[in-house]
Amino acid sequence: MSFDDQLKFDSNGLIPAIIQDAANGRVLMMAWMNRASLETTIQTGRTHFWSRSRKKFWMKGETSGHTQQVKQIAFDCDGDCLLIQVEQIGAACHEGYRSCFFRSVEGDGFRTTEPRLQDPGDIYGKKAG
Amino acid sequence: MSFDDQLKFDSNGLIPAIIQDAANGRVLMMAWMNRASLETTIQTGRTHFWSRSRKKFWMKGETSGHTQQVKQIAFDCDGDCLLIQVEQIGAACHEGYRSCFFRSVEGDGFRTTEPRLQDPGDIYGKKAG
Repeated sequence: MSFDDQLKFDSNGLIPAIIQDAANGRVLMMAWMNRASLETTIQTGRTHFWSRSRKKFWMKGETSGHTQQVKQIAFDCDGDCLLIQVEQIGAACHEGYRSCFFRSVEGDGFRTTEPRLQDPGDIYGKKAG
Repeated sequence: MSFDDQLKFDSNGLIPAIIQDAANGRVLMMAWMNRASLETTIQTGRTHFWSRSRKKFWMKGETSGHTQQVKQIAFDCDGDCLLIQVEQIGAACHEGYRSCFFRSVEGDGFRTTEPRLQDPGDIYGKKAG
């Protein structure tokens, strides 16, 4: 049975993909894939996504060089979420942190829980984002 | 600054929450929260969600007893995804597996990567689900 038959893409043709660092289990980011980006991810071994805001197919690291080499792709019981183990080059977050989840709730506020590895301006040039 | 100001709920008032085992980093499940379920999660220290299919507020473990004690709540750079560390009692998955991500892609197919801890019928009675 094909794993693809097990997956459910939403009404926009998308499925959320949780990206986890294969080396230490740190959750690095969550982004959305459509069928084409999932197929390209499998074919190339590099993560590709669909940007809902930019309405654009993109490869992680295409600008920053911070690519993700795929080690394993799992999917959940309902088939509506992916969990992808990767080898991450550099910072996964466009803000320059290793993980996009660099802030945690503390009381009514929050605190930053990890060091910034790089200035966004150094990653993307003048346009940080 | 309140962390709540940093969060973006989608057009349905929902935000995805990745649930991770605080003990070993295993990603257990992904489910959706609305503002009320997030607030109740914070107030009670137990995860609460919004079921999109059943259109229902629910506490994880309310039927199975497999509750999740919250250890930390993180949120991502875009404020549109939560990452919650929990102490998980029993199986997180309604299929009786520790994690909902118990299947991984292998070639064109998939394989089960962890043992089933419990029969769903034993968790939920005759109605497995």
